[in-house]
Amino acid sequence: MSVELHILGSSSASPTRDRSQSGQILDINKLRVLIDCGEGTQYKLIRGNLSYQKIDIILISHLHGDHYLGLFGLLNTMSLNHRTRPLHVYSPGGLKELIDHHFRVSNTTLRYELIVHEILGGEELIYDEGNIEMHALPVQHRVPCYAYLIREKTVNRKLNMYVCEKYGVSQENFKALKRGEDLTLEDGSVLSNELLTFNSEPPFSYAYVTDTIYLEELARRFSGVQVLYHEATFLDNLMDRAEMTYHSTAAQAARFASKALVNQLIIGHFSSRYDDLQPHLEEARALFPNTELAEEGRSFFFK
Amino acid sequence: MSVELHILGSSSASPTRDRSQSGQILDINKLRVLIDCGEGTQYKLIRGNLSYQKIDIILISHLHGDHYLGLFGLLNTMSLNHRTRPLHVYSPGGLKELIDHHFRVSNTTLRYELIVHEILGGEELIYDEGNIEMHALPVQHRVPCYAYLIREKTVNRKLNMYVCEKYGVSQENFKALKRGEDLTLEDGSVLSNELLTFNSEPPFSYAYVTDTIYLEELARRFSGVQVLYHEATFLDNLMDRAEMTYHSTAAQAARFASKALVNQLIIGHFSSRYDDLQPHLEEARALFPNTELAEEGRSFFFK
Repeated sequence: MSVELHILGSSSASPTRDRSQSGQILDINKLRVLIDCGEGTQYKLIRGNLSYQKIDIILISHLHGDHYLGLFGLLNTMSLNHRTRPLHVYSPGGLKELIDHHFRVSNTTLRYELIVHEILGGEELIYDEGNIEMHALPVQHRVPCYAYLIREKTVNRKLNMYVCEKYGVSQENFKALKRGEDLTLEDGSVLSNELLTFNSEPPFSYAYVTDTIYLEELARRFSGVQVLYHEATFLDNLMDRAEMTYHSTAAQAARFASKALVNQLIIGHFSSRYDDLQPHLEEARALFPNTELAEEGRSFFFK
Repeated sequence: MSVELHILGSSSASPTRDRSQSGQILDINKLRVLIDCGEGTQYKLIRGNLSYQKIDIILISHLHGDHYLGLFGLLNTMSLNHRTRPLHVYSPGGLKELIDHHFRVSNTTLRYELIVHEILGGEELIYDEGNIEMHALPVQHRVPCYAYLIREKTVNRKLNMYVCEKYGVSQENFKALKRGEDLTLEDGSVLSNELLTFNSEPPFSYAYVTDTIYLEELARRFSGVQVLYHEATFLDNLMDRAEMTYHSTAAQAARFASKALVNQLIIGHFSSRYDDLQPHLEEARALFPNTELAEEGRSFFFK
């Protein structure tokens, strides 16, 4: 199983020469999740060799243009290129009506089933299939906006092949052992799972927190998350502006990471006023050393 | 006075690694016109050093996503970056409601006046100011779609400085002479304009014809146009597919140019099935030699 994150864009609303609007691909085990879909997302996918047809789920944080305007073109391109597999989109309320409006005007009928799930209330478990679950958690922005938490529920234990062979454990028992079950032998005796397997790494978890004022109380909900993406639109000397526009600073992102005791912080959603992002990185690292920049085209390989 | 054309994108609906969706900047004298606004147009403008704030007029051919989906982000970016000058957009009916819908959902108020002119009927003179006029002419596509004709009405005559000096013509008379007026001297005698000026080049004209089946009868309306952009989605061996999808072939674009007796043809809106565009160029040039490809990032300097 592997987990990869590909940054497609990390500008705030006004793009720059080097930075496009928000979008990222999280490949978690066999699931491809597109998180936010700013204008130009389909170009980034095509040019980055990231198949858009493999996307299973799209999560939209909120309905400001820089987070969703690439969606209509992407949905249409999927259809033009013969997608038939259903696609699930999660978003605050209002997206379905917008999609319907566009496709009505352009007389478009998709070749695949598009299921738009609108999140209308507070925290919600939006996805729970196989080994993965996803939660939407409201943040505070100028329009309804959600953070997303995506995590593996459990991770298979690793077989201790030396001991398994010693006890003559046959292959058909391996799956149950990986799940953590004990093994009952033909004579009725039981071998404990701990004897036959090793612990593996903890389940992976990823949190995406964008377009919000600094919400210290939310950090508790992300406690122990392995990787946190948190917006850092401004530097801390513009904290007033951050509050006024319902955004965060690099230092606040780092403080959030620190409170949540995450392993790694990735900051993004940079205002167009900044050409050089080193000051963002330094400001965050001063409080939370394991911080990286969400630079366009950058990929992170977590396991 | 100068006329320049900058190609921002020329793919058809499904973009490719090298080609983005439709958009082009026509700078004609002091007017900046954006013609079609596919997804990613604002990025192309920023990265191509073409100021989006200088755009005076946007012409949208039709409401298929690859021709208008870049509009909402561009309008917002203009506002975020403090545009106050009014902006005029021309489009088939339905665009205003879409813009209102987006800006209502995202709670956006533009800082400038946006005037959306919806074209609902047949041929229409949509702009007539100073020395420039623009016409919208209906073509035949799967949704209402318009070709645009943009032209200088007259061009100033050029002063014959040698003769002007000989007769002691003072500078304050130059403007009237350039407009073609005769000059009345203080003693009442009249110097004819032809004596004091030269003919200049003919007025410039540009036609943009996209997303249409081949319309031979329309060629007459573009008779004598200097530069014609005509879509060439397919090669001629897919003429059936072109007709079925209401598009044209490279040969049909060339035939149109030939019938209209234009000076130069530029072909674009290429289907994603073609990697190499040389066959398009050869097919068109066989019928109309002065043909060029609308390659992304290419600029044409007409005068």
